[in-house]
Amino acid sequence: MATAEAQVSEMLDRVLSAETVPETRLYESMRYATLEGGKRLRPFLVLQCANLFDGTCQGSLRTAAAVELVHCYSLIHDDLPVMDDDDLRRGRPTTHRQFDEATAILAGDALLTLSFEVLAHPDTHNNPSVRCDLVLKLARAAGSHGMVGGQMIDLSAQKESFGIGEITRMQRLKTGALITFSCEAGAILGNAIEPAHEALRGYAHDLGLAFQITDDLLDVEGTVEETGKAVGKDEDAGKATFVGILGRDRARTQASLLADQAIEHLAIFDEKADLLRSVARFIVERRS
Amino acid sequence: MATAEAQVSEMLDRVLSAETVPETRLYESMRYATLEGGKRLRPFLVLQCANLFDGTCQGSLRTAAAVELVHCYSLIHDDLPVMDDDDLRRGRPTTHRQFDEATAILAGDALLTLSFEVLAHPDTHNNPSVRCDLVLKLARAAGSHGMVGGQMIDLSAQKESFGIGEITRMQRLKTGALITFSCEAGAILGNAIEPAHEALRGYAHDLGLAFQITDDLLDVEGTVEETGKAVGKDEDAGKATFVGILGRDRARTQASLLADQAIEHLAIFDEKADLLRSVARFIVERRS
Repeated sequence: MATAEAQVSEMLDRVLSAETVPETRLYESMRYATLEGGKRLRPFLVLQCANLFDGTCQGSLRTAAAVELVHCYSLIHDDLPVMDDDDLRRGRPTTHRQFDEATAILAGDALLTLSFEVLAHPDTHNNPSVRCDLVLKLARAAGSHGMVGGQMIDLSAQKESFGIGEITRMQRLKTGALITFSCEAGAILGNAIEPAHEALRGYAHDLGLAFQITDDLLDVEGTVEETGKAVGKDEDAGKATFVGILGRDRARTQASLLADQAIEHLAIFDEKADLLRSVARFIVERRS
Repeated sequence: MATAEAQVSEMLDRVLSAETVPETRLYESMRYATLEGGKRLRPFLVLQCANLFDGTCQGSLRTAAAVELVHCYSLIHDDLPVMDDDDLRRGRPTTHRQFDEATAILAGDALLTLSFEVLAHPDTHNNPSVRCDLVLKLARAAGSHGMVGGQMIDLSAQKESFGIGEITRMQRLKTGALITFSCEAGAILGNAIEPAHEALRGYAHDLGLAFQITDDLLDVEGTVEETGKAVGKDEDAGKATFVGILGRDRARTQASLLADQAIEHLAIFDEKADLLRSVARFIVERRS
C-alpha cells in the first residue's frame, strides 16, 4: 500500500507542470494543493478495484491521479472564504491562504481540467472507448448531478433543516459520486462485466456513507492535531449532519453497519479484494 | 447563421439541466450564464470549420455547445470580485451579482465539467478516438497551458510592464487557445487530414489575435451600451494591452493585417470557407 501511494504521488508529480514561466505561481499552487498530504483514499480505491481485473498498472495510476486531481480541486474551491471559509487543510494553510483567492480559484479550475486531459490521453488505455467511458463517468460524478450539486446543497444546509433522507442524498452527491467512480473506474479499466460493476457500485455506496458519517463524528470528537483541519465547524454553523440528526451513538452504529454491508457486496470476489475489505473497517475506525 | 445560432442555443438548452431539486439554484445560475446573449463566436467557428469537411450536424452542434460552456464558465470566474471584479456582462448583472459568489464559482465548475461530459458522450461522434481527441485537445486549450494559464498571467499584468511579446503570449493562451480549438475541432470531427489542420490553426491564431486587439480597442473607444460590459477598465487598472503599447492607430492597422493574414490561411478551401473569411473581417470592424 505504501508503494502504491508513492506511485500515485509520482504520477501526480509527473502530470503537474513545474515550468518556470510568467504563470509559474499557478503551477506552484496546483502542486501545493495536490502533492503533499491527504489520505489518497480515492486513488487507493481505483488501484485496488483495477487490481481485481488485472488492469494495467500505468492506466490505473493515471486514473487514480485523475480522480485525486478532481478531489484536490474540490477541496481548494470548498475551502474558499465564500464557501466553507477554511484556513487549514491537511495541517497546512489552505491554498487561498498560502497564495491568494484568485490563484486558488484558477488552480482548482486547472486541476479539474487536467484530470480530463490525463484520462483522455492514449497512455491511460489503448482502447479509446474505455477512455471515453472514464471521461464521461468522471464528468457525471464530478458535475452538477454529482459533486458540485452536492456542494450546492451543502451551502444551503446551514439555513434549512434537513432530515436523514436529504442529508443522505446530499452526501451521495457531494462525496459518494466520486468514491463510486473511483471503484467503478477499476472495473472499466479492466473491461469487467456484470455483476462486477454492480458489486463495486454497491460497495462504494455504503463505503462513501460510512466515510461521511465518520467524518461528521470526527468533526465533533476529533482535534485539530488529529484531523489537520478545523473541527466543530459543522455544529457552529448549525449545519445538518448525520451526527446532529442521529446522535453520536446511533451514528457510530450506523457507520459500522454500513462498513459491514460494504464488505458483503464484495462476496463475489476472492482474496484479491481483501484490502478493499480492510479499508472499509479502517474507514470507520480512523481518528483523522 | 441565424439558424445555426438558434440550433446552438437549443443544444445548450438541452444539455443544461432545469430540474427542480434542492440544488435548483445551481442549474438556474448555469443557465443564466449560458443561454442568453453572447456573440457565440466559438460555436460559429466549430460549425463552419466542421462544415468544410461534411462533419455530422449533431456532432458539430454538441462540440459547439461544449466550447461555449467552457467560454461561459471562464467568463463567470473571470468576472468574480477577486479576479476582474465585473458587475456587468452581456448587458446584464454578472452571475455572482445576480446570484452570489459561491453559486457563481460552482456554476463555473459545473459548466466546465459538463463540457467534457458532452464531448465524451457517444452522440458526439460514433468513433471514440475522435471523442477522446476532442476531450484531450479541449482540456489542453482550457487548462493551465492554455486559457487558465493566460488568465493567471493577466492577473499579474496589472503590476508588471509587459512588452508586445509577453502580451501576445498571454493572449494566445487566454483567448487564442480556445479559438484555435474551436477551429481545429471542425477538422477533428470531419476526420480531416493535413494540411487542413495546419491551415485552420493558422487561421485561428491570427483571428484570435485580431479579435483580442479589437477587444482592447473597444475597451478604450466603446460605450457600455455598445459592449454590454464596463469599458475603460484596462486603462484604469494600469493593465498592459495591445492598445497601450501600440497606440490606437497601429493597433487598428495590426488587427486589420491579422484579419487579412487569417483569410490567406484559408486559400486551400473553396467557397465553403466564405463565411469564415467574412467573419475575419467582421471581427475587426465590430462595435461590440
